[in-house]
Amino acid sequence: MSLIVQKYGGTSVGTPERILNVARRVIETQDAGHKVVVVVSAMSGVTDGLIKLANAVSPAPSERELDVLLATGEQTTIALTAMAINALGRKAVSLTGAQAGIITDGVHTKAKIANITPKQVHEHLDDGTIVIVAGFQGETSDGRITTLGRGGSDLTAIAIAAAIKAHVCQIFTDVDGVYTCDPRVVPTATKIEEISYDEMLEMASSGSKVMQSRSVEFAKKFGVVFEVRSSFNHNPGTTVKEETRNMENVVVRGVSIEKNQAKLTLRQIPDRPGNAARIFTALAGANLSVDMIVQSDGIGDTNDISFTLSKDDLPKASKVLESVAQEIGAQGIETQDGIAKLSIVGIGMRSHSGVAAKMFAALSHGGINIQMISTSEIKTAVILEEGKIVEAANLVHEAFGLSARA
Amino acid sequence: MSLIVQKYGGTSVGTPERILNVARRVIETQDAGHKVVVVVSAMSGVTDGLIKLANAVSPAPSERELDVLLATGEQTTIALTAMAINALGRKAVSLTGAQAGIITDGVHTKAKIANITPKQVHEHLDDGTIVIVAGFQGETSDGRITTLGRGGSDLTAIAIAAAIKAHVCQIFTDVDGVYTCDPRVVPTATKIEEISYDEMLEMASSGSKVMQSRSVEFAKKFGVVFEVRSSFNHNPGTTVKEETRNMENVVVRGVSIEKNQAKLTLRQIPDRPGNAARIFTALAGANLSVDMIVQSDGIGDTNDISFTLSKDDLPKASKVLESVAQEIGAQGIETQDGIAKLSIVGIGMRSHSGVAAKMFAALSHGGINIQMISTSEIKTAVILEEGKIVEAANLVHEAFGLSARA
Repeated sequence: MSLIVQKYGGTSVGTPERILNVARRVIETQDAGHKVVVVVSAMSGVTDGLIKLANAVSPAPSERELDVLLATGEQTTIALTAMAINALGRKAVSLTGAQAGIITDGVHTKAKIANITPKQVHEHLDDGTIVIVAGFQGETSDGRITTLGRGGSDLTAIAIAAAIKAHVCQIFTDVDGVYTCDPRVVPTATKIEEISYDEMLEMASSGSKVMQSRSVEFAKKFGVVFEVRSSFNHNPGTTVKEETRNMENVVVRGVSIEKNQAKLTLRQIPDRPGNAARIFTALAGANLSVDMIVQSDGIGDTNDISFTLSKDDLPKASKVLESVAQEIGAQGIETQDGIAKLSIVGIGMRSHSGVAAKMFAALSHGGINIQMISTSEIKTAVILEEGKIVEAANLVHEAFGLSARA
Repeated sequence: MSLIVQKYGGTSVGTPERILNVARRVIETQDAGHKVVVVVSAMSGVTDGLIKLANAVSPAPSERELDVLLATGEQTTIALTAMAINALGRKAVSLTGAQAGIITDGVHTKAKIANITPKQVHEHLDDGTIVIVAGFQGETSDGRITTLGRGGSDLTAIAIAAAIKAHVCQIFTDVDGVYTCDPRVVPTATKIEEISYDEMLEMASSGSKVMQSRSVEFAKKFGVVFEVRSSFNHNPGTTVKEETRNMENVVVRGVSIEKNQAKLTLRQIPDRPGNAARIFTALAGANLSVDMIVQSDGIGDTNDISFTLSKDDLPKASKVLESVAQEIGAQGIETQDGIAKLSIVGIGMRSHSGVAAKMFAALSHGGINIQMISTSEIKTAVILEEGKIVEAANLVHEAFGLSARA
C-alpha cells in the first residue's frame, strides 16, 4: 500500500458537483489500494470575493487579518470535500493547515513553511481514513493563522508529500499536463510525459504558469516526484522528477512564451563601477522583478543598460529610475512595450551544440527580428516584437521537432 | 478603566457598511475609557449559505465537518471587523474561538463550553488592543473545531465576560431591548429597563426570543450582568441581572406570546402507574420538546393526558404515540392546532396574590376562552385560540398596567 497526495485546485472544486467528482476520484485512488491525503484550494471565486469584502471595510487591510479571512476559503472546501467523501460511504476527515501541523514563519500573506509535524495526518491515515488538508495555509509557532501566497496550495501538497514520504504527489488542475508549448498558441503542441525539475523551473519562469517556481523548487529540494494532470479526465499527465540519463536525448523539452513584456533602457551611463548595482538595487527596493538584463557599449566612455520587466511594472520602474538616472549621470531613459519573450528549454542543451543557432535561424527564416538574447545552461530566450510571437513560437516549435505528427 | 464585552449579531454585521458602523461603536466605547472585547456572529445569511453548500454535497453531512464549515462564518467576520477598526486608526486583532481559549466538549454542532483560558485575550487587552473574538465556536481539548449551537454567539460573549471578569456584557441586536410584550402585537408595549435572570428565562421560554435560555442561564450561574440593546441607535437597552429588592414592586414584568402551538390529547388512559412516563419518554426519545402538560379524569377509571408542543412537531409526535397509545390501552389520540400560549412573567408574583385571577378576569371580560393553564412561581401561562391571541395580549398587558401612558 503506497501513500499518495492529491491536490485539487479552485476550478476542480468550484461547485458542489465538482467536489463530488473529486470525492469519486479520491475514492478510486483508495480503491486502487492507496492511502490518500487530499489537499484542496478555495472554490474558484471565493478568494476574490473575500478580498473584495476586505477592501470594502479597509483601504489597506492588515495582513494578519487578511490571512485570517482568506484561510476560511480553504477551510470551507476541506469540510465540503470530507462531507462529499462521507456521503459516498468512505471515512474522511478535514484538517486545517494548523491541524495538519504546517508551521510557517510569521510573514503574513506570503509565509514560508518552516516545518511540518503531520501527527494527525498519520493517525487518521493509519485508521484507514482519507485526510483532507487545507492548502495555502499554516500557523506560526505562536498560533497565528498564516497563508503561503500565490501557488500556496501546490506548495502545501508537495510539502505534505515530502513530510509523510508519499510515493507520489498528483497536482490536479484544469489542464492535462505540461505541453511543449501553449496549445492555444501552437496547435501542434504535445503533452510532455516526463520533465526534470530544472526544466520545469525554466518553463515556469518563462511564462508556462502551470505551477509557481517555489513549489517546483521545494519538490526538487526534497526529491518529491509529482505529476500534473487534469481533474476533468483520466489522461495521464506530466511527471516532474529528478533528471534521468535519457531525458538528455531530447534537446529541447518545450517552448514557452511570455507576452506583456516591456524594455527599459538607460542611455550613456558613465562607465564607473557601482552604477549597475545602484540601478538594480533601486528596482529591488521597489519590489520590481527584472527579467533579462543586457549591457552594451554606448557612445564614448559610457554604457547602455537595458532590461525587461512586466509591462504592468513599467510606469513604476520609470519613476523609480528617474532620480537614479540623474545621480549616476545617465543621458536618458527609454521605454518600449509591445514586446514578448520566447524561450526554449531543455537539459539536452547542455550536451548538444548549435541549439541557439538553430533557434535564431528559424526566426530569421521567418523574417523575425531578435531584440535581446539571454541564455542559461538549459534555456535560450529572445525578445521579439509581440505581434510576431505566435508565428515565432510555431516556427521554433517546428524547428526542434516538437510538433505532433499526424 | 473597566472591561466591557460587546456582542454583535448577524444583522449588525450583515454588510461591510454595518461592520464599519460596529467598528465606530467599539471605538466610541474605547474612547469612553474602556478595554473592549468584541464577539461577533457570522454575517446574516452566511450560515444558511454554508448549510446549503453542505446539503449540496451530502444528504446528511457529518457533524464534525459541519462545525469546520460553519466556523468559517464567524472567522470571516472577526477578520473584517478587526480590519475595519484598524482602518479607523485603532489597534485590533481577531481571535478564533480556539485562539481565545474556548475549550468545549466534543458534541459537534451543539458543544458545551468546558472552560476558557483567555490568555491571548488578556495579552492583547493589556497591550491596548481591541480584541475581536469569533462567537459560536470553540475547540475540543484534542483540537477539533466545534460550534455551540443556536444562540452560540451570545453564549460566547457571556462566557468570555465571565472568564475575564468584565464589568458588563452588552448584547447588541436588532431590537432596542426586552419589551413588556412584542410591540408588533401590543403597540403600547414599553421597554423594560431592568429584568432579573429568572424573569428573562421565563420570558425566553414563553416565546420572547431575544436570547436563548442557555445564555441567560450561563449569565445567572456566573453572575454576568448583561444588557440587550440595539446596534442601530444609541438608546439604552434592557439590563439583565440578579434580582434586586425593588424589582418585586412590579408584579408582572412582561407578557409573552407564542403562536404555532398544538395540543395532543390521549383519551381514556387506564389509571396505572408508569403510563405518563411511557408517553413522555417516547417523546423525549424522538427529540420532541413538550411544553404544558395537563392530566384530567377521564371516563371511569381512566385519565386524559394533554400536552402542547410546537405545531411543526405535531405530525411526528402523533406518529411516535400511535404505538404507545395501543400499548398502554388509551382509547384514542386527538390533535388540535390553531392555538397559542399567553404568559405573564414577574418575580413580583411570588409576593402578590390574585395575579392569576386578574389575568383570567381580563380574558373573561374579553370573552376569550382559556383551554389550558399552567403556573410556575413567577409565571402564569394559558392556552387560547390562536385567532384571539392579539386581543388577549392587549387586554392582559393593559390589565397589569404595563401599557405606555400618553
